[in-house]
Amino acid sequence: ESVRERDFTGTPYIPIYVMLPLGTIDHNNKVAGYDDLKSKFKKLKDSGVDGVMVDCWWGLVEAKAPQHYEWSGYHTLFTLARECGLKLQVVMSFHQCGGNVGDDVFIPIPQWVLDIGKENPDIFFTDKQGVRNPECLSWGIDKVRVLRGRTALEVYYDYMRSFRQEMNEFFLDGTITEIEVGLGACGELRYPSYPETRGWKYPGIGEFQCYDKYLLADLQEAAEARGHSHWAQPPDNAGEYNSRPQDTGFFRDGGDYDSYYGRFFLKWYSNVLIEHGDRVLTFANLAFEGVKIAAKVSGIHWWYKTASHAAELAAGFYNPSNRDGYAAIAKMLAKHDASFNFTCVELRTLHQAKGYPQALADPEGLVWQVLNAAWDAGISVASENALGCFDRQGYNKILENAKPQRDPDGRHLIAFTYLRLNDDLMQEHNFKEFSRFVKRLHGESIEN
Amino acid sequence: ESVRERDFTGTPYIPIYVMLPLGTIDHNNKVAGYDDLKSKFKKLKDSGVDGVMVDCWWGLVEAKAPQHYEWSGYHTLFTLARECGLKLQVVMSFHQCGGNVGDDVFIPIPQWVLDIGKENPDIFFTDKQGVRNPECLSWGIDKVRVLRGRTALEVYYDYMRSFRQEMNEFFLDGTITEIEVGLGACGELRYPSYPETRGWKYPGIGEFQCYDKYLLADLQEAAEARGHSHWAQPPDNAGEYNSRPQDTGFFRDGGDYDSYYGRFFLKWYSNVLIEHGDRVLTFANLAFEGVKIAAKVSGIHWWYKTASHAAELAAGFYNPSNRDGYAAIAKMLAKHDASFNFTCVELRTLHQAKGYPQALADPEGLVWQVLNAAWDAGISVASENALGCFDRQGYNKILENAKPQRDPDGRHLIAFTYLRLNDDLMQEHNFKEFSRFVKRLHGESIEN
Amino acid sequence: ESVRERDFTGTPYIPIYVMLPLGTIDHNNKVAGYDDLKSKFKKLKDSGVDGVMVDCWWGLVEAKAPQHYEWSGYHTLFTLARECGLKLQVVMSFHQCGGNVGDDVFIPIPQWVLDIGKENPDIFFTDKQGVRNPECLSWGIDKVRVLRGRTALEVYYDYMRSFRQEMNEFFLDGTITEIEVGLGACGELRYPSYPETRGWKYPGIGEFQCYDKYLLADLQEAAEARGHSHWAQPPDNAGEYNSRPQDTGFFRDGGDYDSYYGRFFLKWYSNVLIEHGDRVLTFANLAFEGVKIAAKVSGIHWWYKTASHAAELAAGFYNPSNRDGYAAIAKMLAKHDASFNFTCVELRTLHQAKGYPQALADPEGLVWQVLNAAWDAGISVASENALGCFDRQGYNKILENAKPQRDPDGRHLIAFTYLRLNDDLMQEHNFKEFSRFVKRLHGESIEN
Amino acid sequence: ESVRERDFTGTPYIPIYVMLPLGTIDHNNKVAGYDDLKSKFKKLKDSGVDGVMVDCWWGLVEAKAPQHYEWSGYHTLFTLARECGLKLQVVMSFHQCGGNVGDDVFIPIPQWVLDIGKENPDIFFTDKQGVRNPECLSWGIDKVRVLRGRTALEVYYDYMRSFRQEMNEFFLDGTITEIEVGLGACGELRYPSYPETRGWKYPGIGEFQCYDKYLLADLQEAAEARGHSHWAQPPDNAGEYNSRPQDTGFFRDGGDYDSYYGRFFLKWYSNVLIEHGDRVLTFANLAFEGVKIAAKVSGIHWWYKTASHAAELAAGFYNPSNRDGYAAIAKMLAKHDASFNFTCVELRTLHQAKGYPQALADPEGLVWQVLNAAWDAGISVASENALGCFDRQGYNKILENAKPQRDPDGRHLIAFTYLRLNDDLMQEHNFKEFSRFVKRLHGESIEN
Repeated sequence: ESVRERDFTGTPYIPIYVMLPLGTIDHNNKVAGYDDLKSKFKKLKDSGVDGVMVDCWWGLVEAKAPQHYEWSGYHTLFTLARECGLKLQVVMSFHQCGGNVGDDVFIPIPQWVLDIGKENPDIFFTDKQGVRNPECLSWGIDKVRVLRGRTALEVYYDYMRSFRQEMNEFFLDGTITEIEVGLGACGELRYPSYPETRGWKYPGIGEFQCYDKYLLADLQEAAEARGHSHWAQPPDNAGEYNSRPQDTGFFRDGGDYDSYYGRFFLKWYSNVLIEHGDRVLTFANLAFEGVKIAAKVSGIHWWYKTASHAAELAAGFYNPSNRDGYAAIAKMLAKHDASFNFTCVELRTLHQAKGYPQALADPEGLVWQVLNAAWDAGISVASENALGCFDRQGYNKILENAKPQRDPDGRHLIAFTYLRLNDDLMQEHNFKEFSRFVKRLHGESIEN
Repeated sequence: ESVRERDFTGTPYIPIYVMLPLGTIDHNNKVAGYDDLKSKFKKLKDSGVDGVMVDCWWGLVEAKAPQHYEWSGYHTLFTLARECGLKLQVVMSFHQCGGNVGDDVFIPIPQWVLDIGKENPDIFFTDKQGVRNPECLSWGIDKVRVLRGRTALEVYYDYMRSFRQEMNEFFLDGTITEIEVGLGACGELRYPSYPETRGWKYPGIGEFQCYDKYLLADLQEAAEARGHSHWAQPPDNAGEYNSRPQDTGFFRDGGDYDSYYGRFFLKWYSNVLIEHGDRVLTFANLAFEGVKIAAKVSGIHWWYKTASHAAELAAGFYNPSNRDGYAAIAKMLAKHDASFNFTCVELRTLHQAKGYPQALADPEGLVWQVLNAAWDAGISVASENALGCFDRQGYNKILENAKPQRDPDGRHLIAFTYLRLNDDLMQEHNFKEFSRFVKRLHGESIEN
Repeated sequence: ESVRERDFTGTPYIPIYVMLPLGTIDHNNKVAGYDDLKSKFKKLKDSGVDGVMVDCWWGLVEAKAPQHYEWSGYHTLFTLARECGLKLQVVMSFHQCGGNVGDDVFIPIPQWVLDIGKENPDIFFTDKQGVRNPECLSWGIDKVRVLRGRTALEVYYDYMRSFRQEMNEFFLDGTITEIEVGLGACGELRYPSYPETRGWKYPGIGEFQCYDKYLLADLQEAAEARGHSHWAQPPDNAGEYNSRPQDTGFFRDGGDYDSYYGRFFLKWYSNVLIEHGDRVLTFANLAFEGVKIAAKVSGIHWWYKTASHAAELAAGFYNPSNRDGYAAIAKMLAKHDASFNFTCVELRTLHQAKGYPQALADPEGLVWQVLNAAWDAGISVASENALGCFDRQGYNKILENAKPQRDPDGRHLIAFTYLRLNDDLMQEHNFKEFSRFVKRLHGESIEN
Repeated sequence: ESVRERDFTGTPYIPIYVMLPLGTIDHNNKVAGYDDLKSKFKKLKDSGVDGVMVDCWWGLVEAKAPQHYEWSGYHTLFTLARECGLKLQVVMSFHQCGGNVGDDVFIPIPQWVLDIGKENPDIFFTDKQGVRNPECLSWGIDKVRVLRGRTALEVYYDYMRSFRQEMNEFFLDGTITEIEVGLGACGELRYPSYPETRGWKYPGIGEFQCYDKYLLADLQEAAEARGHSHWAQPPDNAGEYNSRPQDTGFFRDGGDYDSYYGRFFLKWYSNVLIEHGDRVLTFANLAFEGVKIAAKVSGIHWWYKTASHAAELAAGFYNPSNRDGYAAIAKMLAKHDASFNFTCVELRTLHQAKGYPQALADPEGLVWQVLNAAWDAGISVASENALGCFDRQGYNKILENAKPQRDPDGRHLIAFTYLRLNDDLMQEHNFKEFSRFVKRLHGESIEN
């Protein structure tokens, strides 16, 4: 890290949104610890923070029964934010809260959906061993009428429509500035290919997650359309969650990933991801016409320096060498005028990467490729820190990425989302450091 | 009429759907006269009729309260049709039943909508005198959140979505073959420019219907965008409902309809119609993916032989001489793969036209232009008889139009909808004549 | 005519180019009457005229032998113009000079071409009686290698390329401001359907000119492609040169022009015209990259007020009622960024039209349709007076059309070309009147 | 190599064309050794060879003076081929013959062009040291009028047009089956980045060749358009002809090739190549409408296994990891319906690669990427052996590449061109082996 800090006075103003604690709205759809939250909101406002990012958990709002939406808790929360002069970035969180790295609160998806899953587990992503992942719905049922008369797309649309109507006032007065549309596990547009619950450890390559009957049927159809019905199953030599690329016949250099069959399968697997994004964002734009929408893409930077980019392939990004997997995604987002929320800019994982040199990770290389894919497609990029950060060195890292000095065209992030509002942050020294960071993100001068 | 009848044996099979009586479903959402209807259905099936066309009246289904849909009556009716082996063409009827030529039943749009209209009458089409037309919603509120938290588009979508879910079984087993999407007064994609309730008599030119505050605001915006805010009101020299084109400064030969202002206004007025169709059909395709959708366009054939085509302009079809107004509509329908239901092929109006030679009507010329517009855009055309018909001469007229002998490419209607199932039709002689017509429409031989 | 003259001071500056006398370059490729021309040029310059329009006659330049281009005469002429400070609009005149209304000089197309025509007369447009029209080449041989090893397109391209190279200096110093590409008889993009040489008199409908074997072969192919080989000949009930529409089974109201066959034939006939323009302008843009190109379209305003627009159909403009024939041409020109030179704005023909009320002519209606077609396609329009004009009333007419007062958007012609530099114009009174006209065209004030 | 030979009986028929000796047409435009050639042609025909590939050297045909084309020699040669029943693939060879690997004949480009080059050497590709490469014209003068009144594009077009006219008979009777359009050094669409004349040795990375004033001016313009005029020169840390990537600051892993500036420069450098191909093929299609055209792309397989793909970048293929440089070229070719002649399928270079393991070459990987780029763009691929081949093992290698057994969709080359007709090939044993290869390429059975 450069010893002398860079002076950000006069650099572009980048708005900062602080992620609320996961349990902000409790299971009775009430705001947890209202007064404490109110005082924190005031402090955030005083420090110059532009707004807060709120997950609207599917598991809370549509908990009771299909199409019965309980928005009261969120309505109280939004009113509080507005009173404190804070803007809102709202996430349509169609995924489970908890069970992933760093989550302490557990909000599964609605019970009536889990009940459907009991008789028809294929509504969930499924891996080779047939293990189901209840974190979110499989993309295979986007258009299948298995959710008590509705398709998954219809469920997502009704939820977003109900939100748009309930919160009309916050749209009209501009309190809500952006809607991030949850598109998969952790709200990110990726297959759940590296679930810790299945024993995955960094830097395992992860596994393909297209073994539910609906995705397999889709694969069958694609294989027959290509005239090779024997291609209608995922590769059987792609290793396990914690394999290394070179251990597998599929991902090793010169492996099957680049064969006739490999190219067919990966094109199908990655297209399912892009088509899912395309469909849901079409409905999102219909529901939220006039409001900026965004999609979250995670930065899978381990095994980036190999030919096959195994971990990215398993997650659905067809990005082996000599092919730009992120350009196709950026093109789809541009079609919907959606912006790109990218999560792995927090380059502090370097220490993490240092711990596993053999992971051939390259977070900076990945970030550089994704940023260029977005800029070339003419869409804006926002981002958030993947792991907690309270120290000046971490903040400097974020600032440098938000407004890179070297960028000849002065390009910069359109917004930054800080993980996460909690007591540590409120601790006096930390909050002073954070407020300093906020000023520098806004391009204001800091006397100290 | 040709004395010797044309033999239609071996000509293409054109399916025939019979329109049900308007009061088939009563105000308690029950099937009226179930047993009588059952016997009629059986007779229709025996005569070879392919199916029936049913209006799903908005005023019946969503009568009680917003988003409370009462489908039980229609479910019983559909089940009956299926049992009798009859297919279903269903109309999403977002308009009032009755109050027009030939309607004996009166089903206004839902009361809760009419109540909104009491405080905010601008949700209805409005004419120059400020008189409101409660037959259907104005296209001005497509995107305005004035219907108890919902926009008109959202109301239309929710209704179609609820139908798709409720009647899933009839979609899966193919009983439902087509959905006709109601797009305006009488379900037709036109402005309600010639309402009998306002004293209109054939062949009056009708009046522009864009005086509600929402459409006027849209016109204002368009005028400012063109840099001429003084153009922000409809023409003031376009006469009254029963005027003749030459009586008016706007529609007479060389009139203002062809001036700088006239062209600006008519382009705006006709575009509002096309954009409404575009938006609603986008939602229809999302709701009914995989099922054929159709839009109804009415044949306004009076004053066709004048330069301005006044009656067509007032109804929103920008079709003066040297401009093809129907090509633009066909192009929009093609974009949604929707077919064109055209209603004035019943050329028997000739007698009607004969009664008003000065109306310079030309039903055949109009039909010929519309058919070519549809064929050139690659979309199929269906049609229905505008006025009742029981006699062989009328049936011959319909047959000749359905499968024109002179068509070198053998083009023909994809379906014909017969107006209407009633006791007259069931009268022995009439029904025998009708059955004979059905066979000839199916290209079957008739011994008689 | 308005008694009080409109004051054009401060109106937009419209450049004026004066057409040179037809015989300016004589048969030995010398400038005829150099000194007299020089003095006229000086006077033109003094009067403020921007430049002159010069026909580069194919019959003069490539007279001796294929690909032997004699540019010396034109080079001298261009040098003279430059010295006198005059700009140049140059016409690639691939047509015969003389033999038409008002031409006193006679320059046929190159003799070696006429010789080819002796053995293979089908290289010329041919009418029903098989009479050949040597004014220009038929569009049927655009792609046929019948001109001593070259196709017509190759002949046109080589000529334009040779001009571009020879006159490079006049391109580099901006003396040449526009190239008008000759596309048919009289340089206009039309069939030669009303040749006085064949006895045509105003307001005869003219005849179809597609009877050369090459165009007939093309028609045959189109008919077979549509599956109706019996449609492979032009209509046999379209009357003679001097017929009236209602005299013919094809053009009368409700005639065959609107039948299945009629629509097929007219679509083919008008498409040949558009494709010819498309091809030649493609080559023109390749030869003259960076210089504005233009195409000349003649205003056939007689029989405009009938349903079939017979005279326009015979000339290749498919512009019956309810169809905009000029929009298709404007679209093609826009594709090549070419401007629209329109020749019939000289509304003084009204007196002419007055003489034949039954001709149902409407020059103003036609001009209005063509202007809107060009504006809608986003291309600029220039024009010229069809008949000589020296009097203030005629000039007022031209000025009113060049910069119509009523145009709310202030749209106006990009240039005006005055027919023609001759001694009458130089006559003292006429020249004073002309100079006054030039000032008003330039929006300058006139004291008088 | 597989010991047992694959039996190609019944596999797809792939036509084979044999390249004629470089000196077939001598400097007096006469066929060298006519009788010997005639007997060889007969033998080729007997062996089943489909045709021969002929270079039409610019330096021979347009030797005397601009636009004076001497085709007599080639006309005699074509007539001989036709008599012997052989088809013709003709190459428009706008490059120097000789001075490259394996060329024994020396035919420079026309003297009048070299003379122009004496005063204006910037008409040639130029490297960092300012050394000019007279092999072909720089792409910088495509549109600059520096060739005695003509631009380079006009010179190419006139040459192709003259050929089309001269050889009309061979087009009409189908003797000529394809025209390969020379697009750069050795006729290949690449920068001359590895010239042996400048001391280049395999596997040197080569140097950028954009230092002529015209290309530098173009780079200047692009840099200013991006707002960074200081980017207006090629990289100064890209090493020498025989450098290795890791020796240079530009090409080493993490080098400047992937920086803001690097991406800008490489996008510009590779776009110049694509635009040149686009322009010349546009003219080629105009000249040779109806005949298949092709473009030759060379397989630069050394340093393929590095991140930057240095040798490919220097040759103009922007193909670093995570970017598909060949897809952009395939897309451009598809636009012109041109096929892809790829020259490095002769995988025997493996022995060559074996000699330089550190060259990180991957001919098979490159071929696989290029084939997929072509197939994805829907264009066909032909190829030729880069180095001479007479033995069965070499032939087996070519056969395996022409009709890969593993290709599930049975895709195969559309044609193969054999390097080269010479006495060695005619030597009895060699010719017997060659004839055996021809049969197997045609999918015929071989008894022995």
